[in-house]
Amino acid sequence: MSTMNAVRFHGQKDIRFEKVPVPETKPGWVKIAPKFCGICGTDLHEFLGGANLIPTPGHPHGITGETLPLTLGHEFSGVVEEVGEGVTHVKKGDKVCVQPIIYEGECRACRRGLVNCCDKNGFIGLSGWGGGMADFTTAPASAVKPLPDNVSLEVGALIEPLAVGWHAVSISPYKEGDACLVLGGGPIGLSVIQALVGKGCKNIIVSEVSKRRREFAKQFGAHNVVDPTATDVVEEVERLTNGEGADVGFDAAGVQVAVDSALKAIKARGTLVNIAVWEKRATLSMNDVVFRERAYMGIATYALGDFEAVLEAISSGRMTPEGMITKKIAMDKVSEDGFKALIEDKDNQVKILVDLSLKPESDAGS
Amino acid sequence: MSTMNAVRFHGQKDIRFEKVPVPETKPGWVKIAPKFCGICGTDLHEFLGGANLIPTPGHPHGITGETLPLTLGHEFSGVVEEVGEGVTHVKKGDKVCVQPIIYEGECRACRRGLVNCCDKNGFIGLSGWGGGMADFTTAPASAVKPLPDNVSLEVGALIEPLAVGWHAVSISPYKEGDACLVLGGGPIGLSVIQALVGKGCKNIIVSEVSKRRREFAKQFGAHNVVDPTATDVVEEVERLTNGEGADVGFDAAGVQVAVDSALKAIKARGTLVNIAVWEKRATLSMNDVVFRERAYMGIATYALGDFEAVLEAISSGRMTPEGMITKKIAMDKVSEDGFKALIEDKDNQVKILVDLSLKPESDAGS
Repeated sequence: MSTMNAVRFHGQKDIRFEKVPVPETKPGWVKIAPKFCGICGTDLHEFLGGANLIPTPGHPHGITGETLPLTLGHEFSGVVEEVGEGVTHVKKGDKVCVQPIIYEGECRACRRGLVNCCDKNGFIGLSGWGGGMADFTTAPASAVKPLPDNVSLEVGALIEPLAVGWHAVSISPYKEGDACLVLGGGPIGLSVIQALVGKGCKNIIVSEVSKRRREFAKQFGAHNVVDPTATDVVEEVERLTNGEGADVGFDAAGVQVAVDSALKAIKARGTLVNIAVWEKRATLSMNDVVFRERAYMGIATYALGDFEAVLEAISSGRMTPEGMITKKIAMDKVSEDGFKALIEDKDNQVKILVDLSLKPESDAGS
Repeated sequence: MSTMNAVRFHGQKDIRFEKVPVPETKPGWVKIAPKFCGICGTDLHEFLGGANLIPTPGHPHGITGETLPLTLGHEFSGVVEEVGEGVTHVKKGDKVCVQPIIYEGECRACRRGLVNCCDKNGFIGLSGWGGGMADFTTAPASAVKPLPDNVSLEVGALIEPLAVGWHAVSISPYKEGDACLVLGGGPIGLSVIQALVGKGCKNIIVSEVSKRRREFAKQFGAHNVVDPTATDVVEEVERLTNGEGADVGFDAAGVQVAVDSALKAIKARGTLVNIAVWEKRATLSMNDVVFRERAYMGIATYALGDFEAVLEAISSGRMTPEGMITKKIAMDKVSEDGFKALIEDKDNQVKILVDLSLKPESDAGS
């Protein structure tokens, strides 16, 4: 049995660069050689406080049947290495990215097409089926999306986080002419900003504590940025919307005090969309919800079609996300130069990619 | 100056039957002799724990300029006594009901037609401009709605609470074929049930602790009732919806534990509509919001057009709310036979009406 290099999650603060078997290409599946793979906030949550989403021994994932140790990486592009029987939409050598959502296809949500709300849902790179931080990985054909000729493999690794922002805007009530408030200028906040730019929004207001992140927000198309520690967000949003308030808010921060002011900054019948991951319950000031008939809605990753829409927006020039990539590292440096940089140099990093063409300094363990 | 009888709120647990001046009929306003006036949960909140909404000395209402003592009664019908200059849509002797919402008409919400979300909004019978518990009261012509010939004055006093339920269903995502969960079988829960019946809903599931209120819920059209203290609401809703969950939930109870289970009982992308009055913040289990992309929205009373829609639904026979009236009392008995009965005999009372044709036993104070 041939082996390959992979980055695997063994438990909290225990990520190992090691040898694992090369996966077989089953009928209807595609074998991919990953080229670039992003490190996501969810990976960081697992590293620091996990396992949370990653299944632990005794509790295998409902679809993959796997438990840790598991290969990481759910934001990745690569080149097709081999196609399984019956796969016709891609061929060996094609540049692709992977929509990593794992779903049953039979549950009550899946039957309605809402596969991201699947009762058993999971993710390649978190729940099993390999991942992007490995020399090879396999995925069902339906998850493999060809990159347009003018979309690079680097950018291909950004499609997943961009699809989260795209989806949030798509299922929100956002419509042309609306003013939007975005809470947080991290990778998901920037992805929301780019989706709004891609959809033609002319008034994007971003509230973000970090100066560097406010600069990133402007770089990616925010029209106005606010430091909530220095300025009253509600008053500033009113000022920037002729006293009307924002039509839609997007919370990519998950901070209670920001939610409280965002609700007030949104106009009557407006909606606050939550994309953030919360580790506790959110609380709502019901007077702000009721007396202005505001709504609060949750968003889970992306739906079928969002990857294609993002690829089209980039290919046609409406979105230019290259600048999100702030660092590229080798596979054996994920803990040291990846996770630690995202913690200690947070303000200067947006997206750190594992570049699988960079030769590891050390040999993988086995 | 001629005087008349009125029931006025002086402060917490201090409601007085007393003599007040008869109001003048200004140009564009209508003078009405109230005939029936409901006692609302909001009145009860003010009686027990107020003044909350009712403006207190030093803090006059932004539109009426009034403070307590104020005449009570915002759910009322009556007969037109006199019309002010320029009023043509009603004439002396007409049976009418009153849409009691007070709004500025100039604010950012009003300019969008959302007068119920007015930055300064208030209510006749709570914020000034008289009220339904008086021999006479005046209201702007636009607030005065003629009753169709086949709608009685008793039923006319029910239009206001029915409009709350109608509005909640109208601006919710409810559509034909949806299954709905209603939390609470008090007056507002019953008004939601009747609105859903009026709009043709074929699967109304009501969760209510009180046996008597579950019976009322069935009487007004609920297809299924659940006692949440005896049955798992999430499982029961699944069972009653072929495993799918409810499409829309309506919270007319405002109880945290009920909100928690209602969110779980609603399908992916479903909405929970809050109509309840909360005295504290609501908390949401964010996993239940995010992973199934559920929404939570607030509703404030009713919008322009809801009174007319309810009157049409009753006149055409699609709603038959008479049975909501469980008791009629005289003006001088509001404290004793009204508020106390709503507290002590809660389960057996839905709507207690002040019947202004009943002669008070005692003289009003002055």
